[in-house]
Amino acid sequence: MLDLVIIGSGPAGMAAGIYARRGGLDTMLIEKVSPGGQAVYAHSIENYPGSYQVPGYELMFSFANHLEKFGLVPEVLEITGTELSGRVKSVHTAKETIEAKAVVIASGASPRRLGMPSEGKLTGRGVSYCASCDGNFFKGKVAAVVGGGDAAAEDALYLAKICSKVYVVHRRDSLRAQDIVQKRLFAMPNVEMVWDSVVEDILGADKVESLLIKDVNGGTVRKLATDSVFVAIGQVPNTGLFAKEVALADTGHIIVDREMRTNVPGVFAAGDVTVKPLRQVVTAVSDGAVASYSAIKYISTEF
Amino acid sequence: MLDLVIIGSGPAGMAAGIYARRGGLDTMLIEKVSPGGQAVYAHSIENYPGSYQVPGYELMFSFANHLEKFGLVPEVLEITGTELSGRVKSVHTAKETIEAKAVVIASGASPRRLGMPSEGKLTGRGVSYCASCDGNFFKGKVAAVVGGGDAAAEDALYLAKICSKVYVVHRRDSLRAQDIVQKRLFAMPNVEMVWDSVVEDILGADKVESLLIKDVNGGTVRKLATDSVFVAIGQVPNTGLFAKEVALADTGHIIVDREMRTNVPGVFAAGDVTVKPLRQVVTAVSDGAVASYSAIKYISTEF
Repeated sequence: MLDLVIIGSGPAGMAAGIYARRGGLDTMLIEKVSPGGQAVYAHSIENYPGSYQVPGYELMFSFANHLEKFGLVPEVLEITGTELSGRVKSVHTAKETIEAKAVVIASGASPRRLGMPSEGKLTGRGVSYCASCDGNFFKGKVAAVVGGGDAAAEDALYLAKICSKVYVVHRRDSLRAQDIVQKRLFAMPNVEMVWDSVVEDILGADKVESLLIKDVNGGTVRKLATDSVFVAIGQVPNTGLFAKEVALADTGHIIVDREMRTNVPGVFAAGDVTVKPLRQVVTAVSDGAVASYSAIKYISTEF
Repeated sequence: MLDLVIIGSGPAGMAAGIYARRGGLDTMLIEKVSPGGQAVYAHSIENYPGSYQVPGYELMFSFANHLEKFGLVPEVLEITGTELSGRVKSVHTAKETIEAKAVVIASGASPRRLGMPSEGKLTGRGVSYCASCDGNFFKGKVAAVVGGGDAAAEDALYLAKICSKVYVVHRRDSLRAQDIVQKRLFAMPNVEMVWDSVVEDILGADKVESLLIKDVNGGTVRKLATDSVFVAIGQVPNTGLFAKEVALADTGHIIVDREMRTNVPGVFAAGDVTVKPLRQVVTAVSDGAVASYSAIKYISTEF
């Protein structure tokens, strides 16, 4: 039986791996696709302290190298099921069943996408899913935020400090965001609400130049010039495998305390898959470190 | 009036600076001595993801450079007093009074020291104040932990997984740590309790070789061979300036929620000065990022 299985090798999972190995745990790190998680696709990361303007894949490569120094290489395996509630945790793959004393879930999340081909083509070229990651790249320029919930409103407020103009494109005629945030948003001189509207297409040859906006009532379509579009219509956390055993919030994210403990003893979670205030590489690595540190304490006490 | 004053330029304060500047806040970063905090003195840091085995001062230098890219250089100033409860926050220095909409306290903490000259001489050469930082450097070697509280017991359990032998030197005949942690500690085959004992001196020419241990009852002194000594007799958080306005835990650390908010609106705290489960560079930077992100949200809503 292993000490620890870590599920996912984004920044949270890799940091968990470093801390688990340094803490002497016999550890396996399972990755579905390839190491690095969402961060791999970031054109440039400029807010991970110590690494100014580094491509996401390069930063994640340095994390993977770091992990290897402690003898841990992600195993690419598809998990088919888990049994987490018992004292011994089982993780099933097509090939084998892995048993461990503790589990760290760091399976990440994916942003919900608008769904048109131009969106994929222009991601990292004006299309972003993270205002706190990419807002600064559009300093003094125009931004459009798509969405009507708290995340969209907060993104718009955040961008209003940085960008010359911020459009908020929402398919309804009111926001779902908290009242106080809405009030402040409406008071911002450089924020303009685009109600009852959906994005039909994102235009631009090699970077975002404008949006095609359709009025949901009249059906008329118009062009809205913008340098960037921040899509804030929700996230899909990768919790399908764990949903029946681990407590989730309404949003589908795993509920953790400050020690990254879930409701199941011996099961910890870290990074974008959890409920948390700020989704960044810098917070994911912290989560991963704390999760493994808590797993070390748990194993020392329970086994 | 500034948007934000950050107090302290260790990893937490510098990360807060990066996030505040990227978020468009007019920010001042105040440092008492020199940038980098405690981390500067770390002989080698090998668990900040992406940086394997880098001297602490070098990592902190890279943080300071990163910060400067966003136009922020720590100002070396001695703070003489603060007024944090009002809508406008005032920070007094010998030279001037700085006003801001929000404050991030990242003033750090210092470990309590044993107090003999050999301790300072051998710090980083076997004397450590952080098992989760330095334990791995003594893999398969002998460690002594000094202290009897939760931190000491957890350090000893942590080290027992890594080191061949762990002594716990405590001046009383029982621990203050939680029962379950004590039970587990006593069950560890490679942990030996050294009760009723204090460290008289730390011996070694250029690295720790042994401790002089005095029995507090009989007064007899003996030599205990060890490669390392982990001092876990408490921490002194740097909260003197804020104690009358900001709510502190029994340990003197500032109480924060997951968004790094203190009990005072507009006042946030980050890093070693706060109540938290794991004190590391990797968790400090996360705290700093979250504190500034929360400050940005606060300023957007309140001003």
